[in-house]
Amino acid sequence: MRMYDIIAKKRNGETLSEEEIRFMVSGYVKGEIPDYQMSAMLMAIYFKGMDDRETAILTNEVAHSGDMVDLSPIEGVKVDKHSTGGVGDKTTLVVAPVVAACGVKVAKMSGRGLGHTGGTVDKMESIPGMKTTLTEKEFFHVVNTAGLSVIGQSGNLAPADKKLYALRDVTATVDSIPLIAASIMSKKLAAGSDCILLDVKTGSGAFMKTLEDSVTLAEKMVAIGEHAGRKTMALITNMDIPLGNRIGNSLEVIEAVETLNGNGPEDLTEICLQLAAGMLYLAGKGSLEACRTMAEKAIEDGSARNRLIAMVEAQGGDSSVIKDPSLFKTAPFYKEVKAEKNGYITRMNTEQCGIASSLLGAGRLTKDSVIDHTAGIELKKKVGDRVCQGDVIAVLYASEEELFAVSEKEMLRAVTISADQPHEIPLIYARVTKNGVERLI
Amino acid sequence: MRMYDIIAKKRNGETLSEEEIRFMVSGYVKGEIPDYQMSAMLMAIYFKGMDDRETAILTNEVAHSGDMVDLSPIEGVKVDKHSTGGVGDKTTLVVAPVVAACGVKVAKMSGRGLGHTGGTVDKMESIPGMKTTLTEKEFFHVVNTAGLSVIGQSGNLAPADKKLYALRDVTATVDSIPLIAASIMSKKLAAGSDCILLDVKTGSGAFMKTLEDSVTLAEKMVAIGEHAGRKTMALITNMDIPLGNRIGNSLEVIEAVETLNGNGPEDLTEICLQLAAGMLYLAGKGSLEACRTMAEKAIEDGSARNRLIAMVEAQGGDSSVIKDPSLFKTAPFYKEVKAEKNGYITRMNTEQCGIASSLLGAGRLTKDSVIDHTAGIELKKKVGDRVCQGDVIAVLYASEEELFAVSEKEMLRAVTISADQPHEIPLIYARVTKNGVERLI
Repeated sequence: MRMYDIIAKKRNGETLSEEEIRFMVSGYVKGEIPDYQMSAMLMAIYFKGMDDRETAILTNEVAHSGDMVDLSPIEGVKVDKHSTGGVGDKTTLVVAPVVAACGVKVAKMSGRGLGHTGGTVDKMESIPGMKTTLTEKEFFHVVNTAGLSVIGQSGNLAPADKKLYALRDVTATVDSIPLIAASIMSKKLAAGSDCILLDVKTGSGAFMKTLEDSVTLAEKMVAIGEHAGRKTMALITNMDIPLGNRIGNSLEVIEAVETLNGNGPEDLTEICLQLAAGMLYLAGKGSLEACRTMAEKAIEDGSARNRLIAMVEAQGGDSSVIKDPSLFKTAPFYKEVKAEKNGYITRMNTEQCGIASSLLGAGRLTKDSVIDHTAGIELKKKVGDRVCQGDVIAVLYASEEELFAVSEKEMLRAVTISADQPHEIPLIYARVTKNGVERLI
Repeated sequence: MRMYDIIAKKRNGETLSEEEIRFMVSGYVKGEIPDYQMSAMLMAIYFKGMDDRETAILTNEVAHSGDMVDLSPIEGVKVDKHSTGGVGDKTTLVVAPVVAACGVKVAKMSGRGLGHTGGTVDKMESIPGMKTTLTEKEFFHVVNTAGLSVIGQSGNLAPADKKLYALRDVTATVDSIPLIAASIMSKKLAAGSDCILLDVKTGSGAFMKTLEDSVTLAEKMVAIGEHAGRKTMALITNMDIPLGNRIGNSLEVIEAVETLNGNGPEDLTEICLQLAAGMLYLAGKGSLEACRTMAEKAIEDGSARNRLIAMVEAQGGDSSVIKDPSLFKTAPFYKEVKAEKNGYITRMNTEQCGIASSLLGAGRLTKDSVIDHTAGIELKKKVGDRVCQGDVIAVLYASEEELFAVSEKEMLRAVTISADQPHEIPLIYARVTKNGVERLI
């Protein structure tokens, strides 16, 4: 078997066999297939795609390129959640405790932020003392005692994906739905949970800019998960506007805690309840409706909040900041961004909001950026709100005053103010299961 | 400027600017742009193409990546010829002497054979003592005294093309018309002639399998040549059947000499006259008709044959074999391939004929193969001929008897014998100039 022939086959629009995909992935990981052949293949896949069978095989091969985590030392059904990434997305910090409070274990590996998006691991590290790297034994122990644990990805989880992603990142082959699906799902399969709830973001702040692409990606991923014997469901959610009102690391943890306290922003609370209900449903806790009621109750009675406190303590963190978020260290400087004219906010370019936050120090503009956990943005107005010239739209937080100028400019560019009141934008567009797509708007 | 953005632009089907193409080629030659980015770009070009302007810019940049040969020490108009390669194509050894005999200088750099195709340099090296590597000074001297010189390509002619071709060869991105056009023409532009006659082969033994692709390639190349100020014309010629009756190195030199003696096969003689007429026409020697008459006369009066003898002697070769081809060293073994049934020969798969010859030792199956100059095939029958079972179709020549079995099998596979007489196949399909395509059938 020669890589040349496999490239030519895909280039000609033919379907690759299991043997060919296996040869390609294992040869690439071993270094027997050079980057320049793989990048030509990735570009051929960009143009010619992969069918569901090919994508499932690719995902399986990539997953098996490293450790397959065995979660059997954790009792009961384990459920995982994945978000395709967005701005202000702190749902994991709300949803995982809610699900754990309802008796379903969450053993989750999360990522770090890059570019305009944030990462759960970075956010958690704004909690003093919080460890996000645990041994497998420690990880299992935290899940068994606290009911949940969220840590950073282990070193040898789907190494083929790391190598492939790094290559896609420099060869303009990231934006391919089968490759995105295989990349996400390979890590989820390797991470070992029985059920997987996918939050596929759509809109200006998301990877997938259109609803159609988001649905296609969700369908592919659900097919892969089910094919591998995992109960899988996806929600297509809005990322045309930042989620909640706070962007940044400790700022987002504070908002997550407020949501667990029942005082969160309406959009964030609603999405968290839907995601939690979906995870509980996959875990066999009853109908979606019943699961939602269960999730609501876990917030009302404080049991979800207690799960978060338990996890923080079990991972060495100082839970006093969770119990009283005003104890979080705050940024020394702030700057108000004011409306430049009267009207309605009709648009908030979410990617630009994310970049504005990263520019303040909250995110990584490059892989080597150091994160300022106190930096970020608090939105005072959102899409649909009426503003008068001079009204505060957002407050920027940073550790150096000179960071404000460029961030404020980006933030003002992100916001469109017009005379006409905009239509309400939906929060959740659709639910995708193995049975098909259910539109929710 | 970042290579990533240039890849993404081409991937999206946009047109690249001169600055972008320059950045890409020079960065690649310098090693600043890695193979894996260039191969992704090549695959994007495979799918999205390049327009005439982009292809002309690419060609120019690749040509200027190395030495641009300055032929001004050679007096008069210099005319070059290029064939896209085929089986039994010994036209250069006929056409160059004819053109030189008509007073137009030919300073030509030729290639070696690979796979099923032969190369003029390999063929010339079957002449005892013949040098195919000359210094520039020697090369100019041979052209100025003999009227022509054919040598191997110099080390630093379009090095970007060498590097790009090697990458295309292992990433399934060879079959892209703009990339083929740029590759061929970059070397022709760098080689310095004023006029360029292109022989674009079409059919089963050619790179371009369809007439449509061949015409497109010819149009691209003519546009590039004219854009660079070189008078350029292309003939689209048949390679659905080997050219002439002999395949192999000394065998082809012998046939070229016979053609210069006026005793060549009809198809080879006709194509050589047309090619020579085209070259003379480009050099301003009169109408195509007048140029053809001139070429015929150069064969009739022996002046073309004398030019070949002069070149061989000037390049250190033993001209006695040209004067008397029976003095060529011959292969110690031969084997007759016989018709397996009665009927008409309706097809000779030309690529398979070329491979059959290579298998005898006449060609390079890999880059490191050593050539046996005496090996090859003599065709006794061609398409359209009536054969009876047991008639000799071809004679195989080799230095080892054990090579015959596999070559004979390949040769028998190449030949189709059917009951019905086939239609005559055309020799020359079209002529392409800056003014358009002139169909000749």
